Amino acid sequence: MTLTIAGLQHHGEPGDVDANLAVVAAAAGEAAERGAGILVTPEMFVTGYNIGDRLAPLATPDLVDRIARIAQDSGIAILAGLPETLENGDITNSVVMIDRDGAELLRYRKTHLFGALDRRLFVPGAALPGIVEIDGVRLSVLICYDVEFPETVRRAALGGADAVIVPTAQMEPYAHVAERLIPVRAWENQIHVVYVNRVGGEGDLTYVGRSSIVAPDGEVLASLGATDVGLLIATIDPQATRRARQENPYLADRRPELY
Amino acid sequence: MTLTIAGLQHHGEPGDVDANLAVVAAAAGEAAERGAGILVTPEMFVTGYNIGDRLAPLATPDLVDRIARIAQDSGIAILAGLPETLENGDITNSVVMIDRDGAELLRYRKTHLFGALDRRLFVPGAALPGIVEIDGVRLSVLICYDVEFPETVRRAALGGADAVIVPTAQMEPYAHVAERLIPVRAWENQIHVVYVNRVGGEGDLTYVGRSSIVAPDGEVLASLGATDVGLLIATIDPQATRRARQENPYLADRRPELY
Repeated sequence: MTLTIAGLQHHGEPGDVDANLAVVAAAAGEAAERGAGILVTPEMFVTGYNIGDRLAPLATPDLVDRIARIAQDSGIAILAGLPETLENGDITNSVVMIDRDGAELLRYRKTHLFGALDRRLFVPGAALPGIVEIDGVRLSVLICYDVEFPETVRRAALGGADAVIVPTAQMEPYAHVAERLIPVRAWENQIHVVYVNRVGGEGDLTYVGRSSIVAPDGEVLASLGATDVGLLIATIDPQATRRARQENPYLADRRPELY
Repeated sequence: MTLTIAGLQHHGEPGDVDANLAVVAAAAGEAAERGAGILVTPEMFVTGYNIGDRLAPLATPDLVDRIARIAQDSGIAILAGLPETLENGDITNSVVMIDRDGAELLRYRKTHLFGALDRRLFVPGAALPGIVEIDGVRLSVLICYDVEFPETVRRAALGGADAVIVPTAQMEPYAHVAERLIPVRAWENQIHVVYVNRVGGEGDLTYVGRSSIVAPDGEVLASLGATDVGLLIATIDPQATRRARQENPYLADRRPELY
C-alpha cells in the first residue's frame, strides 16, 4: 500500500474563512482527481495566521465540520490548519486530520510556540501527536516551528511513522529552514517529511514558500518555489522507509542510554 | 576571551605514524604562528583509519605522549585522532585533547560505530565526553558518525558548550553530511561546529574533504574544498554563542517533558 500526498502551497485570504474553504474545496477536488489520498494545507490556513485580533472571533467549532464535509464530498482525507477555542477561551494553533469519509483521525495542537507571534495569540498544546494510518502508511504531524527541534521528528520516527506532515507558515528570513533543515530531518531519521508552506504576505510577514516532500534517503520528491501557488504531489511508500533504514541504520545505531 | 581553532585537512600517510606526526608538528607550528590556540586533526589521523590489520600493532600508548610533546614544543593545544589499545586488547577509535603545556585535558572514544568499517576494528566507547575550557571557551568533542545523531550535539549544547569539535573521516557518497547536515547541527543548537575531515583515498574509501567551521547562527566561518590540503582557521567567541541563543532560542523553547 502507498499514499499519495498533495500539499497546497497558497497565499489564502487572511481573515476570510469562506474564501479559504473554497480554496481548500477546489484543491481537494483537484488532488483527488490527480490520485492523492490526502490534501494538506499550510498552518492556520482556514482562518489566516498573522491576523491579530481578527483571529479569536473566527475560531469557532464549525471549522472542523466544514473541513469534514469537504473531505467527504471530495472523497479525500484532509489535514487542515485552523484555530481551536478551548473551554476556558484560550485559543490553540491546531491541525485536524479528517479521513475520506469525514471522520476525525487526529487533532494536534502546536507544542512549540514561535516567539511573540504565536504567544500573543495561542496557548501551547500539552502533548505531541500519535501516529495514524491511511492506506497502510503511518503518519505523524507537526506544525511549523515544532519541526525545527530534532527531538520531535525523532520521536515520530522511533514511533514507527513513515512520514511526518508539517503544515507551516515559514517566513523571511528563514528560507534556509525549508531548504536545508527539512532534508536533514528526513535524512537523519530516514523518514518522509512533507513540508507545506504559505506564500505571499500577511501583516508584516513574507512567507517563503518552498514547500517540499523529501524521501527518507534525503531525495527531494517534489518541491515548489518561493512564490508558486498550487499542489505539491508525491507518493509515500513504506517500502522506501524500510529500505532507507536498512541502508542507513541511524535509528538502530542510536545509543539512547547515552543521551 | 576567544579561541582561534585551526583544523588540519590532510590525506596523511596511512600506516606511517612518523610521517603523520611530522605533518602534525608542521601544522602545529604553522597554526601557532597564525594565532590559533588549538590544532585539530581528522579522525584516526596519527595512524591512518581504513588500514585493516595494520592498525592494531600501531595502537601503542606512546602515541599520546608524542602528541603531547608536539603540543608543548609548539605551545598550542592539540586534539588528535588516534587508536587506543585497552587492557583486554580491544581497540577504540579515540581523540585526545592535550593543552599547550602538554597536559591531557580530555579523552573520548567514539560511541557510535559506523558500519562494518568501524565494527571490524573497534569497540565503542561507553560514554559521551564532558566539556573542557580553553581560554574561556567551552569545548566538547565528537567523532565522525557521532555528529550525525542530533542527540549528541544537543547534549553538548545543553551542557553549555560553545563549540563541538568533530574530527572525521567522511567518505563518498556522504558529502552531503559535510555540506548540509553540519550547518543544520550548528543552527538547531546555536553552537559552533568544527568539522575536520581527511582528503584523498585510503583503501577503497575516497574522503570528501569539505571541512568547515560553522557559527551558531549557521554562518560558515571557514571552509575547505573536496581536495584542499591545509589549515582551516576561525575564531570561536562565546559572545557569539550567547547572542545567537538570544536571537533563536531553540534551547530555551524546547519542551523536554514531551520527548
